[in-house]
Amino acid sequence: MSSIDHFWAVIPAGGAGTRLWPLSRSSAPKFLHDLSGSGRTLLQETRDRLAPLAEDRIVVVTGEPHREAVLAQLTELAADSVVAEPAPRDSMAAIGLAAALLERRDPDAVMGSFAADHVVADPEAFRDAVRRAVAAAREDWLVTLGIEPTFPSSAFGYVHVGDPLPGLEGASAVREFVEKPSVATAEAYLATGSYRWNAGMFVVRPTVLLDLLHQWHPEFADALRAIAAEPARLAELWPTLPKIAVDHAVAEPAADAGRVAVVPSSFPWEDIGDFDALATLLSRGQDEAGPVVLGDPSMVLSVDSTGLVVPSAGRVVAVVGLDDVVVVDTPDALLVTTRARAQEVKQVVAALKDGGRDQLT
Amino acid sequence: MSSIDHFWAVIPAGGAGTRLWPLSRSSAPKFLHDLSGSGRTLLQETRDRLAPLAEDRIVVVTGEPHREAVLAQLTELAADSVVAEPAPRDSMAAIGLAAALLERRDPDAVMGSFAADHVVADPEAFRDAVRRAVAAAREDWLVTLGIEPTFPSSAFGYVHVGDPLPGLEGASAVREFVEKPSVATAEAYLATGSYRWNAGMFVVRPTVLLDLLHQWHPEFADALRAIAAEPARLAELWPTLPKIAVDHAVAEPAADAGRVAVVPSSFPWEDIGDFDALATLLSRGQDEAGPVVLGDPSMVLSVDSTGLVVPSAGRVVAVVGLDDVVVVDTPDALLVTTRARAQEVKQVVAALKDGGRDQLT
Repeated sequence: MSSIDHFWAVIPAGGAGTRLWPLSRSSAPKFLHDLSGSGRTLLQETRDRLAPLAEDRIVVVTGEPHREAVLAQLTELAADSVVAEPAPRDSMAAIGLAAALLERRDPDAVMGSFAADHVVADPEAFRDAVRRAVAAAREDWLVTLGIEPTFPSSAFGYVHVGDPLPGLEGASAVREFVEKPSVATAEAYLATGSYRWNAGMFVVRPTVLLDLLHQWHPEFADALRAIAAEPARLAELWPTLPKIAVDHAVAEPAADAGRVAVVPSSFPWEDIGDFDALATLLSRGQDEAGPVVLGDPSMVLSVDSTGLVVPSAGRVVAVVGLDDVVVVDTPDALLVTTRARAQEVKQVVAALKDGGRDQLT
Repeated sequence: MSSIDHFWAVIPAGGAGTRLWPLSRSSAPKFLHDLSGSGRTLLQETRDRLAPLAEDRIVVVTGEPHREAVLAQLTELAADSVVAEPAPRDSMAAIGLAAALLERRDPDAVMGSFAADHVVADPEAFRDAVRRAVAAAREDWLVTLGIEPTFPSSAFGYVHVGDPLPGLEGASAVREFVEKPSVATAEAYLATGSYRWNAGMFVVRPTVLLDLLHQWHPEFADALRAIAAEPARLAELWPTLPKIAVDHAVAEPAADAGRVAVVPSSFPWEDIGDFDALATLLSRGQDEAGPVVLGDPSMVLSVDSTGLVVPSAGRVVAVVGLDDVVVVDTPDALLVTTRARAQEVKQVVAALKDGGRDQLT
C-alpha cells in the first residue's frame, strides 16, 4: 500500500496521564512510555502507524517542556516538525495551530489528527479507515473515525451514525455527537448498532477545519491564522486562545450543521486511562497464571496472585496472595493498589502536589 | 537496682528470619534490624535490657559471617565477648559452648540465655523475673521464664507450672514442657491458668547445665568442655556436635527428672515471626487510620488502606484501597502481600534460592 499524496499526520502529544502515576509524570507523560511492552513508546507507535500513509509529513504538537523528548524519540522527524505550545490550551488550539500552519504550507493538504497516547492493535485496518476518511475529507467533510464499541462504556463519547454518503465508500453522515452517557444509555446505544465511540480522531482539510471554527469562533480562527502567518506572534496570541476541546468548538456544531462524516471502523483501540485498562490490554491472549508483567518477567516472583506488576526500577518484586493487585515500581516512587481502585491513583498525585512534592508528580 | 554479681548474659544470635524477607536476609538476619522503630536493633535492645543486670558480662554467640556486624552494633563489647560458631548447629551447641567457656572463666557464674531477636516491652519487669530466676539457679535449678499467654497460640511450646518452690519467691517446679499444641489444646491450657509459653529463656549455672547435658548426651558435654579447655579444637570438634535444641537435649528430660523450675512472668513478649506479628506489634496503641509504618511516615501516602508499610529504600510508597496489606520496600527487593498471607513469604525466599538468586536471600 502506498502513501497518500498531501496527507499530513498531526499528532497532538499532551495530557499528563495522572492515573498512570508513578509511571507517567508531568515531566514524562504517558505518550513517552512503552505501555505495551513492544519496545516502542506510545508516541513512537503512533508515528509508526502513520508513517506508511504520511511518509515524513508528520507534525507533532506538544508542550514546550516535552519538545526535546519528542525529538529524541522520533529521530526521523525534522526539528520543524515538532510544534511546541507555550502552554496547554486544550485540543482546539493544538489541532487548530497545526491546521493553520498546514493551510499555508500545502494548499492541497488533508490532515488527520491522532492522539499520541492511544493504542491501536491492527494498524493495517486503521490505515484502511484513514484512507476512506481522507477520500471524504477531500469532499470537504469533517471526518471522524467511529470506533466499534466493545462494551457499554460510560467513559467515552459516542457518534450517532446516519445514512451512508453516496460515492464515499465506508463513510456515513453523522447525526450527532453525544457526551459520555450512563452505562444504561450506552447499552441502549449498543443495541441499536448505530453508535460508535468517538476517539477524537479527525480527518479534514485544514481550510475546512478553520473555516468551520470561524463560523462559531471567528476570533479564534483569525488568531490561529495570524500565528501561522507570523510565527513570532505565537507568544503574544497563544494566551488569548480559548481553552476548548475540538469536539465542542467544531465537531458538535458542525454535526448539527450536517458537515460531519464518520468512517465506522473495527480496529481494536484502547485509551489506556489507568492501570486497570493497562492490565486488560496486557493480559489479552495470556492464559498464564499470575500477574501480567510490563517489563522483565524474571524480575517478578508471584505466589498465588493476579493483577499487574511493572518492575521498572531494576529490583525484584515479590507478590504473595493478592488478587488483581497493581504494583508499579519506579526508581523514586512505588504504587500499590488494586485494579478496582486504580482510578484513585490521582488522589495520590494530588496529595503529593499539596505536600509540595511536585518533583514526584 | 544494682547488677547481679557473677550473672552472665548469653545472647544466642542466630536464625535467618526467612518470613521477614526482604527486610531480614541471610546476610543480615532479623536480630540486626530495628523492627520496633526505636532506633535500636533487636540485638541492641536485647543487650540494653540485660546490661543493667550483667554490666559487661555479656556473651553473644553468633555465626562467623555475622561476627563483624554484631561487634559493629555492640561497640561496648570486647572482641572476645563474641563467640563465633563455625556453622549453625542449633541451640544446644550454641548455649552449651557459652556454658563451657563460662564454667572455666567464673566458677560462681550464673548464666541467662536470651535470644537476640525477641521483643520485650517492659524491661524492668523482665529484669525482676531474671533476678528471681538467678536466685533459683544458685540453688542448682535449671530455670525457665514462663511467659503469660495472651492468646491460645499454636506456634509456641508451653510450660506446665507445678508447685511453688519453698524459699524461692516467684519460682515453681515445672511439671513438664509440652510441644506446640493445637489451638483447642492451647485453649484448654489457658483455661487451667497453669500453663505458660516457653520462650526459650533459661537461667542456670553453667556447670549444672553441662552436667545435665552429660546425663543424656555425655559425649556432647565432653566435647563442649574440650573446646573450652582448648579453643584451638573448635574447628575439629564443632562439626561432630549433634544438631539439637536445648529444649529437647536438656530441658525436657530435666523437667521429667524434677530439676527444672519456672518463674512465671507477665512482661509483654513477642517473637516477631512474620510481618503479621510485626504489624500487630507496631499498631499497639496507635488509633490512627492508615497502615502502620516502620520507618519515616512522611514517605508513605495512603488512600483508604490499612496494614504495614516499611519504606526502607528512601522512596515514596503510595498504597491505595488495600486492607491489611504488607509492603516492604528495600533497595534491591520489594515485597507486597497481606497480613493473612505473611507466612508464605518463605516461599519467595525458596523460589529465589531455587533460581540461583541467593544474593537476594
